[in-house]
Amino acid sequence: MGAAMLSEMATEIVVPVCAVIGIAFSLVQWVMVSRVKLTSERHASSANSSKNGYGDYLIEEEEGINDHSVVTKCADIQNAISEGATSFLFTEYQYVGIFMIAFAILIFLFLGSVEGFSMKSQPCTYDKEKMCKPALATAIFSTVSFLLGAITSVLSGFLGMKIATYANARTTLEARKGVGKAFIVAFRSGAVMGFLLAANGLLVLYIAINLFKLYYGDDWEGLFEAITGYGLGGSSMALFGRVGGGIYTKAADVGADLVGKVERNIPEDDPRNPAVIADNVGDNVGDIAGMGSDLFGSYAESSCAALVVASISSFGINHDFTGMLYPLLISSVGILVCLITTLFATDLFEIKVVKEIEPALKKQLIISTILMTVGIAIVTWIGVPSSFTIYNFGVQKVVKNWQLFLCVGVGLWAGLIIGFVTEYYTSNAYSPVQDVADSCRTGAATNVIFGLALGYKSVIIPIFAIAISIFVSFSFAAMYGIAVAALGMLSTIATGLAIDAYGPISDNAGGIAEMAGMSHRIRERTDALDAAGNTTAAIGKGFAIGSAALVSLALFGAFVSRAAITTVDVLTPKVFIGLIVGAMLPYWFSAMTMKSVGSAALKMVEEVRRQFNTIPGLMEGHAKPDYATCVKISTDASIKEMIPPGALVMLTPLIVGTFFGVETLSGVLAGALVSGVQIAISASNTGGAWDNAKKYIEAGVSKHARTLGPKGSDPHKAAVIGDTVGDPLKDTSGPSLNILIKLMAVESLVFAPFFARHGGLLFKIF
Amino acid sequence: MGAAMLSEMATEIVVPVCAVIGIAFSLVQWVMVSRVKLTSERHASSANSSKNGYGDYLIEEEEGINDHSVVTKCADIQNAISEGATSFLFTEYQYVGIFMIAFAILIFLFLGSVEGFSMKSQPCTYDKEKMCKPALATAIFSTVSFLLGAITSVLSGFLGMKIATYANARTTLEARKGVGKAFIVAFRSGAVMGFLLAANGLLVLYIAINLFKLYYGDDWEGLFEAITGYGLGGSSMALFGRVGGGIYTKAADVGADLVGKVERNIPEDDPRNPAVIADNVGDNVGDIAGMGSDLFGSYAESSCAALVVASISSFGINHDFTGMLYPLLISSVGILVCLITTLFATDLFEIKVVKEIEPALKKQLIISTILMTVGIAIVTWIGVPSSFTIYNFGVQKVVKNWQLFLCVGVGLWAGLIIGFVTEYYTSNAYSPVQDVADSCRTGAATNVIFGLALGYKSVIIPIFAIAISIFVSFSFAAMYGIAVAALGMLSTIATGLAIDAYGPISDNAGGIAEMAGMSHRIRERTDALDAAGNTTAAIGKGFAIGSAALVSLALFGAFVSRAAITTVDVLTPKVFIGLIVGAMLPYWFSAMTMKSVGSAALKMVEEVRRQFNTIPGLMEGHAKPDYATCVKISTDASIKEMIPPGALVMLTPLIVGTFFGVETLSGVLAGALVSGVQIAISASNTGGAWDNAKKYIEAGVSKHARTLGPKGSDPHKAAVIGDTVGDPLKDTSGPSLNILIKLMAVESLVFAPFFARHGGLLFKIF
Repeated sequence: MGAAMLSEMATEIVVPVCAVIGIAFSLVQWVMVSRVKLTSERHASSANSSKNGYGDYLIEEEEGINDHSVVTKCADIQNAISEGATSFLFTEYQYVGIFMIAFAILIFLFLGSVEGFSMKSQPCTYDKEKMCKPALATAIFSTVSFLLGAITSVLSGFLGMKIATYANARTTLEARKGVGKAFIVAFRSGAVMGFLLAANGLLVLYIAINLFKLYYGDDWEGLFEAITGYGLGGSSMALFGRVGGGIYTKAADVGADLVGKVERNIPEDDPRNPAVIADNVGDNVGDIAGMGSDLFGSYAESSCAALVVASISSFGINHDFTGMLYPLLISSVGILVCLITTLFATDLFEIKVVKEIEPALKKQLIISTILMTVGIAIVTWIGVPSSFTIYNFGVQKVVKNWQLFLCVGVGLWAGLIIGFVTEYYTSNAYSPVQDVADSCRTGAATNVIFGLALGYKSVIIPIFAIAISIFVSFSFAAMYGIAVAALGMLSTIATGLAIDAYGPISDNAGGIAEMAGMSHRIRERTDALDAAGNTTAAIGKGFAIGSAALVSLALFGAFVSRAAITTVDVLTPKVFIGLIVGAMLPYWFSAMTMKSVGSAALKMVEEVRRQFNTIPGLMEGHAKPDYATCVKISTDASIKEMIPPGALVMLTPLIVGTFFGVETLSGVLAGALVSGVQIAISASNTGGAWDNAKKYIEAGVSKHARTLGPKGSDPHKAAVIGDTVGDPLKDTSGPSLNILIKLMAVESLVFAPFFARHGGLLFKIF
Repeated sequence: MGAAMLSEMATEIVVPVCAVIGIAFSLVQWVMVSRVKLTSERHASSANSSKNGYGDYLIEEEEGINDHSVVTKCADIQNAISEGATSFLFTEYQYVGIFMIAFAILIFLFLGSVEGFSMKSQPCTYDKEKMCKPALATAIFSTVSFLLGAITSVLSGFLGMKIATYANARTTLEARKGVGKAFIVAFRSGAVMGFLLAANGLLVLYIAINLFKLYYGDDWEGLFEAITGYGLGGSSMALFGRVGGGIYTKAADVGADLVGKVERNIPEDDPRNPAVIADNVGDNVGDIAGMGSDLFGSYAESSCAALVVASISSFGINHDFTGMLYPLLISSVGILVCLITTLFATDLFEIKVVKEIEPALKKQLIISTILMTVGIAIVTWIGVPSSFTIYNFGVQKVVKNWQLFLCVGVGLWAGLIIGFVTEYYTSNAYSPVQDVADSCRTGAATNVIFGLALGYKSVIIPIFAIAISIFVSFSFAAMYGIAVAALGMLSTIATGLAIDAYGPISDNAGGIAEMAGMSHRIRERTDALDAAGNTTAAIGKGFAIGSAALVSLALFGAFVSRAAITTVDVLTPKVFIGLIVGAMLPYWFSAMTMKSVGSAALKMVEEVRRQFNTIPGLMEGHAKPDYATCVKISTDASIKEMIPPGALVMLTPLIVGTFFGVETLSGVLAGALVSGVQIAISASNTGGAWDNAKKYIEAGVSKHARTLGPKGSDPHKAAVIGDTVGDPLKDTSGPSLNILIKLMAVESLVFAPFFARHGGLLFKIF
């Protein structure tokens, strides 16, 4: 049980340095993106900016269209999207801010009341002979770390959105020079977001731990218990980001498509469609800001879960700081690995044709996974002793360092497998999506049936991958193993986010090309980028869901430890009813979010129809639609509709824990986890498959695809219906579900001391 | 711990007498139905049958159409349907028969090998001081009871189908005299099936117990362990019935609708549609025979689960035969209660207008539940001692008779609640279905989104009802409580099946009216009967699913007891991976069945199109379509496609138990249960809602409905798409799922001795 090779001092240096490198790298990428000038630059100080050194980019322009007017148009559209997104996020944050403060007070009151707000030191939970800091301190510091997590999450989402809206018109403009150039701009922008978020999350956590340590000193049990608030803060903001953003984007998208594509027969993203700006804003607030907050939440939670378990294991007991910060070391190395990986996409290889896009993105996943395997081996070798113990529901379990390596590694590779399976089921290069496209021949009904069946089927392998990861890491290192397996899956988060954010950026770029009236060729290029983006978005969701499953199990384990339960026996009525009700919650939640999207879309449809009917010359392109009203409908709907599902998720653990106690709550968490992960995977893959089946017919690349097309044919119309059904599944309810399962678990963990002390009121009364 | 008031002798009389009364009553009902003469009766010995005393029925005929030709036509069509159904069921039973024999051998080998095929007596599992019959005897008798259960199940399905096909043309003919007369014929026919099945199941079980007792004597532990094979036999046949029948019916239905209604714009059940006979055959083999086998399986399993737990409780230990047969007494009283209830529908009240149909069916549920509550109270008072003990995972738990009454009662009333909630979400008299219909205004996509959301939402209350039943019955009487709660829910099975079978009979009656070219008014009446039938079918499915959830939990508990595990701790890796993989199985299974329906429907579409294109004069009604080819397509597809999902369900427990052991298998069972029940409920309600949303628009009864219609309008087309998507959900994958969860549990229970002895190979190796 020796100490780690890496000294405490070295750890204190390595972690922040890696975080700073990550931030620096993201700034470099940002500078590269900013070199693509939006020449009109009315807001820039120098009016002759188009004459600067980078102007020569535009000289290479392949097309004979009027350059300046197009650039001006693009800049205008980008501006409108950026303004819409910013104003929505600010509105959202106002509401969320109120919630944040209210919930912070709740945390303080609940946790403070555990020992009646006493300021006296108390015996530690796990080592009754030692004295720990008072419960009131934990209440205060938990509240602080909750706020820190919440603010970091909001910041992550907001910065991501800013970068994405900064990049989308630039991607459009670069598309004039070829698909390769456009790809690099979109990918770099994604990388800015990925690295900023990963590094930021790490740095804030690192600083918080060190600051809290000033007060807690040697009471690491209390210190890391308080730190779990960071995960709760991160995830609760992510919930509203995902749900609010998801409703926003899909209300606009569905509304725009139903009238534009289906009724008026105008192309997607046509500037005549009044909902088109709202649709593009939606991509940024939903897919970018929402996803950013979500993955940050997963990252924060898995770190917290690992830390809280480690604090009551030999690392914590022996005060081995390097071993203790092993989760942060993994993330630090992850940043370096992703940095190298990114260079492969941006500098070492160049994409020349459309066909190379998807393989390039796939290569990113493979390279980062292989490099990270080496990285993990090194960190595990130098960062933890060759043998140590891990707390396992009442007993200490001996773990070897190679076992820990396998835990992290199995999570990492399970992530890759999930990514590949997701690609297989959602990319139109393979038979599953082609089968779905083929079923459009007999109409929308068979398309929907085949799509649903595809989603269900796509669950099988990911679940086996998750099950194997759980079995390996659970067997080797109990709940700590699962937490680090989740961290392993998330260790390449910077790359994952880069390829994920790339999708909506390309989607927006295509929208801008259409709205700016750019040529068919440009639109074809951005469409190709976008089709690959649909697949990568699905892969990103796969990662998010897979890691959420592992994270919530780890949090669940930490909760059970903290609540001092040693078994969660399915064969007791208290647990079983929790299990079956928990398994129902994802359905309840999905019903709410899907209905919300549906109702908001209906409102949007009515408004769009109204504008087409009442604004003279709109259809002919003489008059401008009233974009702002559509933006307002989406904003209002999403703010209003995000409250009930949000309340369901936030209140369930509080109500169950307080009235039914920790056993039933354990059942609820396990039930929601095993049921939610299936719906989440199937929903997001079904949606992705329908979207790409439609794109398959539209693109008409193969002989088979041409028999189904062209745009406007009956099979294409059937495909559009499938795509529309899939929208809320893949972008609202599906991705929100992984937050549901994580968030309930982390909330239970934070409130565990309260539930253990005062919970189960109902059973106490009877 | 005194004995029951009812003597052993009285029990031995009461049970078979009630069963015989049930059979007699069903024969009486059958005679009543047979009074409606199909005048043409070419197959009857007497050619002048239309001149007999019942001919005066036809004199009252309201319509001026040629009477004899219509009757002849109806008889012909009924004949074709009956022949198609019989020939399909025979083909199915051939395949299923092979499986039955193979599986019987497997049971014998697995169970016989537990003690190495030794004929020596051995110490009992739960009371080591006593000697029990050899494992080989259990193997032999389990095999026999498996075969008994399988044959009874097949018989139940087959008889149900025969009665239904006997009744449908008679319902059509009665519809000429008014909706009330038609209702009574359809309902009586349903009652024939309901009573025959309930009484038959009870009688065979009673005889088997008494015969087995001749060998087992006082070894009740072994006796009732062997009896569990009865449940396994019943449910495994039900699986193939549900899946095979479900694929058959929906392939034909979807295929017929896609070409007929959508492409050719001809009405449903138009005789020009080549798939129309296959569609009507499907209703009988899927909805009638499949449902019959399914509910028989649930009944057999819950009885077996209760019996096996009772055999190791004080009833078994003290050899209290009346207490032991308490589950059979409940069912016996159930038959009497349902008999009285049926009289309310057939004799005491008369239906005059369409509006009264749904309330009349609902009244059946309420009356039977209220009467049964009294019945349960009486049986519990006289049938069990005032206090007794129940085996509860290693310890004996004391139970009072009033607690047992509450266990049965809570199941009974939970069933009623599930029935009402199902009605609320699937009947077009309430806002949920009307909202779905309204969403058709914006097209098929919003219809599908709203429908899916409705299905998800409809899960909430039933799950709470099930959870409360589980909590109450589990707390009072452990696994025995849950088994009798399931029996409580199923105690009114005769009435449940009657109103359930009524649906497809009315559906067929409508089909026959259309095909026989009867007037619009007749068709309107049968449509009204059918719309109520859609709702009652959904209610029936709700019962089937709710009882399946309780039954499988009870079986799960019995399995755990038998496998000698005392806890199923979610916090062990073995159990947790089982849980998450188990929760995935319903998705895998649904993917298979939905894809099967989709593919079979595509083949059907091609054939129907081919016939319309190649048979001259078909569209004009001059030429007859080739019905037989369509029947063959459905038959071949369903036989071929039922094997993979069947194999998944049957092999999973065997593989998991043998290689991973009983803990992982427990996890799989719990996971499949809590996840499957949700998908099953949501799938069947979504489908029912879409179907009735379409009917709502077609009927145009309210002002709101008329703004959406008429037939052929855009909203109606959107509604048809939703209906088609819902077909496989509500009639194939949804209802098959409850068999999945029950069957895996009962199979695990039967094989428990083998798994406990030889299971977990993989973990033993490593």
